[in-house]
Amino acid sequence: MTAPLPDSTSSAAASAAGATTVAIDLGDRRYDILIGSGLFDDASTWSGLPRAAVALIVTNDTVAPLYLERLKRQLAPHYKQVESVVLPDGEQHKNWASLDRVIDHLLAGAADRKTVLYALGGGVIGDLTGFAAAIYMRGVPFVQVPTTLLAQVDSSVGGKTAINHPRGKNMVGAFYQPVRVVADLDTLDTLPDRELSAGLAEIIKYGPIADEAFLAWIEANLDALLARDKSALAHAVKRSCEIKAWVVGQDERESGLRAILNFGHTFGHAIETGLGYGEWLHGEGVACGMVLASELSARLGLMPPAFVDRMTRVIERAGLPVVAPRMPIERWLDLMRVDKKNEGGEIRFVVIESLGKAGLRGAPDALVAEVIEAHTEPGQR
Amino acid sequence: MTAPLPDSTSSAAASAAGATTVAIDLGDRRYDILIGSGLFDDASTWSGLPRAAVALIVTNDTVAPLYLERLKRQLAPHYKQVESVVLPDGEQHKNWASLDRVIDHLLAGAADRKTVLYALGGGVIGDLTGFAAAIYMRGVPFVQVPTTLLAQVDSSVGGKTAINHPRGKNMVGAFYQPVRVVADLDTLDTLPDRELSAGLAEIIKYGPIADEAFLAWIEANLDALLARDKSALAHAVKRSCEIKAWVVGQDERESGLRAILNFGHTFGHAIETGLGYGEWLHGEGVACGMVLASELSARLGLMPPAFVDRMTRVIERAGLPVVAPRMPIERWLDLMRVDKKNEGGEIRFVVIESLGKAGLRGAPDALVAEVIEAHTEPGQR
Repeated sequence: MTAPLPDSTSSAAASAAGATTVAIDLGDRRYDILIGSGLFDDASTWSGLPRAAVALIVTNDTVAPLYLERLKRQLAPHYKQVESVVLPDGEQHKNWASLDRVIDHLLAGAADRKTVLYALGGGVIGDLTGFAAAIYMRGVPFVQVPTTLLAQVDSSVGGKTAINHPRGKNMVGAFYQPVRVVADLDTLDTLPDRELSAGLAEIIKYGPIADEAFLAWIEANLDALLARDKSALAHAVKRSCEIKAWVVGQDERESGLRAILNFGHTFGHAIETGLGYGEWLHGEGVACGMVLASELSARLGLMPPAFVDRMTRVIERAGLPVVAPRMPIERWLDLMRVDKKNEGGEIRFVVIESLGKAGLRGAPDALVAEVIEAHTEPGQR
Repeated sequence: MTAPLPDSTSSAAASAAGATTVAIDLGDRRYDILIGSGLFDDASTWSGLPRAAVALIVTNDTVAPLYLERLKRQLAPHYKQVESVVLPDGEQHKNWASLDRVIDHLLAGAADRKTVLYALGGGVIGDLTGFAAAIYMRGVPFVQVPTTLLAQVDSSVGGKTAINHPRGKNMVGAFYQPVRVVADLDTLDTLPDRELSAGLAEIIKYGPIADEAFLAWIEANLDALLARDKSALAHAVKRSCEIKAWVVGQDERESGLRAILNFGHTFGHAIETGLGYGEWLHGEGVACGMVLASELSARLGLMPPAFVDRMTRVIERAGLPVVAPRMPIERWLDLMRVDKKNEGGEIRFVVIESLGKAGLRGAPDALVAEVIEAHTEPGQR
């Protein structure tokens, strides 16, 4: 808890091809995040990975037409067989049935315990493929190839893999590290605006919880980010990964500090689950959740009201929702009570204690209700 | 690979109550195996475990009538709620449906990320409960309470958890360590003879692969073990756990040395899967598999024919099968090709290279066919 957050240049090195590498070093599980343009078609991106007879690419039916054949071509020189499983797109498919399709494909073919899995897609594909890699024959290597901004900043670091359960998001999973992450910024060119914004939600998050200067940088560069300027995106992705790696490196099993990465997530998950997976994007839930968590921080006396306005403004400018859907307060509380951060039945929220510093607090139900009411769309009780 | 196997007294300490403790120290995941009589009703057995609001005991409908209420009484002082899930008994229930019952019970109740799971039963319950603990909210603590001899010597060490898949045994799982193992030898009093013998199969295994003197001890004490003499059982369980811990400690992720623990298992799994889970007990498959693997070791010129006779004799005296069921050779080979030890399509067998030393070898299909034929029951081709 004592190591200071390194600044944005010290832990990254520019490669000859213009790509940036963030090295994640968690004991014996060291791996690189490659960030840049043109990575997909650069042969060096795919070299030096664990050798195996079979590679299996897991992707979805939105990403497959765009990138599956390109990735297969790149991997062909490295494996006897390059296979693929194409799942339906969407958070509602991050479930046991999809996982079983991957496992069954592995077992039906020639896959052995050295088979390398490639997660080609967004966070759903990354989480599910990572979990499949974690449990198939008790663990095979996997490579993350995130094609959404959210996945590039959120799923690339931390080793969290999971599937959803009808009773809650990410309730079944494992901590399991990839052997490499390839974040090709060119894949963001095909990303819908709405998903770009969803990714910005997680990027914005890193400011208030860990790095006040980064929040100011985001505010100054938000237009460039929304215009998909590669240089701005490269810095945003790199800095987000660095901050996340710094937090995770000090608390790999989420016993304390790491929970601050869930700023906005307690409220956000309740929105996602309450409306049904797929109604709001994860980043949208987090965005609105950050408004509520900022409001809670203010009402707990930790932050001034102006902080809520500042967060609301940057989130809104990023094209993200700042008003919560109307749900009965008991429904909110029930949904938040299954959150993994909770202990002994009390809901614990990530709050901002000062700009760049977050902590975990409980709060009375009545105060939580006020916070939600203050940012909920008008409508019948 | 260089640390010698410690002898049988150096790593165990007798406690005041007459129980023996084997300390398993795998980096940051240190835990104790308690071995002895009367452990169940000794309050100190259950003290000093991770604190939580909820404990969940997972057991089966054979063990529950014998021990569930006793365990609940012992745990009651330590938790607000002590819950239980009683699964149907049998290897055929070591599947996703049973796992989902456990996960669903946890999510439906007040279980949080500190909830402690207790595996009360044999290897099936231990493997399944351990895997549930590994993946529920990405990992909660669990305690093994093995009630079969097989589970006491085999599941207590090594952190292997898994469920079966229709295409193969233990194909989905994780490496995950318990926080304590309680091996009360009194629970063996209620064990059917057939299951006692199945446990002896794994105990016999540790002789040829790692400790010639232990094989001689087993041969000398087999009658006492079959008569359930507590002192003989205590030594057999302790020494088996020590040997397994020594092997696992040098190779926790099964990259090489650890595979020797699968002596007899490649052939044995093929028998189990080929006949359908539940037809032969796991230990019975391993027993017959050891005869075949000994035969293979002899035919590869590594061991003299007398070694096959010696292994066959001790296995048969233990009440275990030494003749394989008749299956077409292609069926054998197909079943063994999905074994997790394989790489690049070649079947790899654990063979004995000299008494107390095992290794991994491939073998031509024709030789494997001869080995199987030499120990198969007469019948139509």
